[in-house]
Amino acid sequence: MKPSIPKGTRDFSPVEMSRRNYIFDTIRAAFKRYGYAPIETPAMENLSTLMGKYGEEGDRLIFKILNSGAVLEEIKEKSGNIKLSDISEKALRYDLTVPFARYVVQHQHEITFPFKRYQIQPVWRADRPQKGRYREFYQCDADVIGSNSLLYEIELVQLMDDVFTQLNLPVIIKINNRKILSGISEYIGHPEKMMDMTIAIDKLEKIGLDGVIEELTERAFGAKSIELLVALLKEMQSDDKLSPHEILNTIEKYIHFTKDGQKGIEEVRKVLSAFEEKLVLHNATLELDITLARGLNYYTGAIFEVKADVGEFKSSICGGGRYDDLTGIFGLPNMSGVGISFGADRIYDVLLEQHLFPEEISESCKALFVNFGDNESLFALQLISNLRAKNISCEIYPDAAKMKKQFEYADKKEIPYVIIIGEEEIKKNQASVKNMKDGSQQSMPIELLDNYLKEK
Amino acid sequence: MKPSIPKGTRDFSPVEMSRRNYIFDTIRAAFKRYGYAPIETPAMENLSTLMGKYGEEGDRLIFKILNSGAVLEEIKEKSGNIKLSDISEKALRYDLTVPFARYVVQHQHEITFPFKRYQIQPVWRADRPQKGRYREFYQCDADVIGSNSLLYEIELVQLMDDVFTQLNLPVIIKINNRKILSGISEYIGHPEKMMDMTIAIDKLEKIGLDGVIEELTERAFGAKSIELLVALLKEMQSDDKLSPHEILNTIEKYIHFTKDGQKGIEEVRKVLSAFEEKLVLHNATLELDITLARGLNYYTGAIFEVKADVGEFKSSICGGGRYDDLTGIFGLPNMSGVGISFGADRIYDVLLEQHLFPEEISESCKALFVNFGDNESLFALQLISNLRAKNISCEIYPDAAKMKKQFEYADKKEIPYVIIIGEEEIKKNQASVKNMKDGSQQSMPIELLDNYLKEK
Repeated sequence: MKPSIPKGTRDFSPVEMSRRNYIFDTIRAAFKRYGYAPIETPAMENLSTLMGKYGEEGDRLIFKILNSGAVLEEIKEKSGNIKLSDISEKALRYDLTVPFARYVVQHQHEITFPFKRYQIQPVWRADRPQKGRYREFYQCDADVIGSNSLLYEIELVQLMDDVFTQLNLPVIIKINNRKILSGISEYIGHPEKMMDMTIAIDKLEKIGLDGVIEELTERAFGAKSIELLVALLKEMQSDDKLSPHEILNTIEKYIHFTKDGQKGIEEVRKVLSAFEEKLVLHNATLELDITLARGLNYYTGAIFEVKADVGEFKSSICGGGRYDDLTGIFGLPNMSGVGISFGADRIYDVLLEQHLFPEEISESCKALFVNFGDNESLFALQLISNLRAKNISCEIYPDAAKMKKQFEYADKKEIPYVIIIGEEEIKKNQASVKNMKDGSQQSMPIELLDNYLKEK
Repeated sequence: MKPSIPKGTRDFSPVEMSRRNYIFDTIRAAFKRYGYAPIETPAMENLSTLMGKYGEEGDRLIFKILNSGAVLEEIKEKSGNIKLSDISEKALRYDLTVPFARYVVQHQHEITFPFKRYQIQPVWRADRPQKGRYREFYQCDADVIGSNSLLYEIELVQLMDDVFTQLNLPVIIKINNRKILSGISEYIGHPEKMMDMTIAIDKLEKIGLDGVIEELTERAFGAKSIELLVALLKEMQSDDKLSPHEILNTIEKYIHFTKDGQKGIEEVRKVLSAFEEKLVLHNATLELDITLARGLNYYTGAIFEVKADVGEFKSSICGGGRYDDLTGIFGLPNMSGVGISFGADRIYDVLLEQHLFPEEISESCKALFVNFGDNESLFALQLISNLRAKNISCEIYPDAAKMKKQFEYADKKEIPYVIIIGEEEIKKNQASVKNMKDGSQQSMPIELLDNYLKEK
């Protein structure tokens, strides 16, 4: 039987690992620069912590863990009356947001608020596996909780710009505000149907204006309401060259009389202004998209979404927003927070497609010492110790095999330098260094080896 | 209901994370210097990959994952005839060794052998939680597979010494060889009972010589065999000052006529000699302990175990050995390998007990800018952008709160510098910098801020 792994999961080879670490290290370094501190939570949470937090579909997609002990006996005893809670009390985390909310409530007395935390860990979902969608994948989240200051919205836009600048990937950061959506639903006479309206217009890009109208009709919006909404959407769409501020001024005409609408416009304006007056985006283009909703019910203010501004890759590679009551579900109300989440797997796919992984990130070692036998290899091990002490990664071939075989090993592992020190070289205190890339070879006193390799 | 996490699992706060990352980063950097390349495998493996690999007890301690879909319906239908495989096909990995063996077999055609890999990932065991034993914990493994060269044993001893030198922790590295144990069992007339003998003498340190004799009697060793073994063990124990080579010479007298014994002695001698002739251990003391077995059935050659050489902490903090047929269970025979595994949680406990965590590893940010209102904070955000671009971690307080509150925030978060730039300071182009540790305060031109903070 050939060994395999569960569908939707992946092994990562050294090459893939070096690319993934390049992404994680870049994101982690940025999180730190912005003052976010790391936490980790267990892979397993109590089932009761997770259930009911992601909707009915989410509940089904949570991986549950079988209780340890005599589960089969339990099942046989209860047979027909078996409940999920009889056989499972724990589950694998489904995202990092709910465990973070649980963490904040559980540790509230140790935490200094506002609490800026980052968390880079895998999550698991029993989704149907498909291209680019996995059952185990990493999330990279930064959130600040315990403050409603808009400075954090501004900072998170800078952070997203910073990460994608480091990764050399041009991006579009779309922003919106849930309060604007709320104002629009009031304007069209259905303040109570904000969610329905949002779900419909969120699909504008995918299904077009006619699709949205159809969806709104199905969701029992009246003709007059639909007419008002369509007029508004058309004015937004009419000219692609509208600046975010022009869009804001246009939408303001419609919803300035609604309390939520006015507040939402004020919030977005403050964030946009910061980047017009004082702050510079190095890479990202900031766009206002009043149809952006990101489906998630818990957003209450700002909404962010990032897409690559090159290539064919249409999916969102980062997103987030502000929520006002995430910890309420665990008994700590009135904690406003805002956060973003980078999708490492999708970023990986874009960087690969765009050939944006730097060549030098390979984790392979710098030099292979040829093995000529017991004496020479012990001599080489001394040199290797010194090189490693200077943080130069190197190794020796394990046996005195034929040169050809040893060079093949270096070649396949993409080790850039092969060091040849046989009996003769030891006598002369010389090392021969072969450059595996261009095939050149040069001799040098053994003492110069470390400087030579360090500089390369 | 107060939120909680499953027993035996842990949340890690920023302070704990910075200490854990210090350990992981140290180990990872050493793995790289020695030419080991990173891989990762999924948290979930097929149940069939894991079952039967860790003994009966191990099978029970594997966390199984409930199949997604209509499991409860399945159970009700089958009721009395339910089998584990009806409700679970996947499980959480129990260690990194079996997934590594599975990886090597599955990817054998992409791998260049000898394959040096490292892997730092959590594992899960349904053990009864107790002090220092958790249901989720990290393992840090380095293995090389596809060569029986003793150079790797030598290299791994260097690697262990290197890691604990970096961590400033004096250690004893005990070594032994399974073939010596095999030679002894032949010498006492029970070559077929090597495992029984090993299990008994492995406990010598814990239960003393009388305990070992009792255990051997229970395991049906004859009086003559026990007498021979006891004489041998006594000669080893008789004088604590025996050097590893003296122990080796003593044991050789007893077992030199056995094929395994002679081979084992030769292997250990080669490793020991390397460190007497050419190579230096910077921190570790190398000891030969012929009672060391580490319980694991799959070791066939060298056996390693590391303990702290300070404090009260008696548990092993690192261990490993050579195995000749790890991948055989998955259909790839005759692949010799050798590896070691660092116990990050135990290393954490020792470093904490010995106050060996450096002060500067905290991940807290370097400077907090006081918030004096909209204009000043936008001004500060510009400076902050420049500092972050120079990789100086800093942040601004989110609101124009009272100074006292802002300073308290810096104090609690252990941020070392608070930067004060109000309306007056902006006019004068001056920043006031307060050192939170000694309470001193100084003024400087704003342009000098980055150099000042960079140097600190």
